[in-house]
Amino acid sequence: MTFTFDQEVTVRPLGDDRFEAEVTDHWNIGDNPNGGYLLSLVIRALAASLPHPDPLTITAHYLRRPELGPATIAVQPLRAGRNLSSATAGFVQAGTERIRVVATFGDLDRSSGPTELRQDRPDLVPPEQCAKRPEGFDPFPPAAELLSRVDVRLDPTTGWLQGEQSGLARNDGWARFSDGRPVDTLSLPLFADAFPPAVYGLVPAAWVPTVELTVHVRARPAEGWLQGSFETRYVQNGYHDEDGRLWDSTGRLVAQSRQLAVLLLP
Amino acid sequence: MTFTFDQEVTVRPLGDDRFEAEVTDHWNIGDNPNGGYLLSLVIRALAASLPHPDPLTITAHYLRRPELGPATIAVQPLRAGRNLSSATAGFVQAGTERIRVVATFGDLDRSSGPTELRQDRPDLVPPEQCAKRPEGFDPFPPAAELLSRVDVRLDPTTGWLQGEQSGLARNDGWARFSDGRPVDTLSLPLFADAFPPAVYGLVPAAWVPTVELTVHVRARPAEGWLQGSFETRYVQNGYHDEDGRLWDSTGRLVAQSRQLAVLLLP
Repeated sequence: MTFTFDQEVTVRPLGDDRFEAEVTDHWNIGDNPNGGYLLSLVIRALAASLPHPDPLTITAHYLRRPELGPATIAVQPLRAGRNLSSATAGFVQAGTERIRVVATFGDLDRSSGPTELRQDRPDLVPPEQCAKRPEGFDPFPPAAELLSRVDVRLDPTTGWLQGEQSGLARNDGWARFSDGRPVDTLSLPLFADAFPPAVYGLVPAAWVPTVELTVHVRARPAEGWLQGSFETRYVQNGYHDEDGRLWDSTGRLVAQSRQLAVLLLP
Repeated sequence: MTFTFDQEVTVRPLGDDRFEAEVTDHWNIGDNPNGGYLLSLVIRALAASLPHPDPLTITAHYLRRPELGPATIAVQPLRAGRNLSSATAGFVQAGTERIRVVATFGDLDRSSGPTELRQDRPDLVPPEQCAKRPEGFDPFPPAAELLSRVDVRLDPTTGWLQGEQSGLARNDGWARFSDGRPVDTLSLPLFADAFPPAVYGLVPAAWVPTVELTVHVRARPAEGWLQGSFETRYVQNGYHDEDGRLWDSTGRLVAQSRQLAVLLLP
């Protein structure tokens, strides 16, 4: 069986670490392709160019509005060592670079060393008791394409779901692919950008374009739901951070993320 | 008066957004130039190539061990918009790229929008009551050059200063330039990498080479001491995160940082 995600993040090699991709509207939020989906296209190109399988740390700068249709991803490998390999990549459409990425890959199966994890995963009711999808209070059209491909459930006590600005800019919830595709290290960054913006708990934002997103992939996820917790702590002069953590179904931390985003009011 | 930092992070333009720099041992930790100091050289080159003054978000991937002596910084501008401009840069020595950086600059004087800051700055005794410099328990030679240029004071209750692995991997303290140079947005990233590794509170690490460091500069600092809080939450298979926050003397958050680093045991 081929899953939707794998079909739609396929990149075709053009030689010399250049790849061809197609941006569809199937991962849109409103009128825009989701940033995590676009990053997933770049990750596929990076994975094809680098000798290690797991994106340990990846940073994307969103430079210009992306378009639907064809794109070229130009990878520039920077280093291929025994444990780590690095590259930068440009995501180009119509001759203009839209996204710049820098990443270091490694192999989580081969990494070893001390493990001391802060046990700070929030308590959360099971997915079945969570809000399936925020319609009505969500400024995005309920038909956001992304949400038919990624099943995101939110803690039903989340203030902004009830139309409250609670002063706590945090979204807790669950996520998985709607078609049952297991989450792997190449798709974890998608989930780091699939929850609604946490800043909704503080400010009635209209649109929060990402300036930069960094994801650290910390472990291979076990099968099942991912638990996510995303929080904004500092809204300052129109910019804000969003910190995210994702745990797998065994309760193990599998990814951390942080983004800097702009806050546009209605 | 010319301050040490400004003298030592000077870069000379070679044309075509290429710059020449000199790596001195004056900012060493042990035998290695501090990563924040090397990043400061790249920041100078970026600032000379981009139309905006403040590095809002900057990510460095440390690819290979740097050397003392000459370096070339090659900047590739990616976008110059009205509010934001972006570039990537390679830090090259002896024909080999050692550091790759991607950054987006803006102008914090011109940014505006809602401000809602979580008031979560830790209580801390004043700098005069803090530990001036960890000798003895610090695995680095007490003559670490960096510490004569950057004055870092640590909370005297910090467990590892007393040789305890307290289970809390957090360093709180104060920092400023030793020669009184005011901290500006171009030097804030140096302070995001000037505190001892927070992981000392968990694991008796010998060396913690940074894979990737991201700094968000959130505001122009007021004059005086910076307060810093740096914390490691997840040590996993030899990798760990370190999250940092810096506040200025008025208590305003001025920078956030996160790094992914390797943990090498003695």
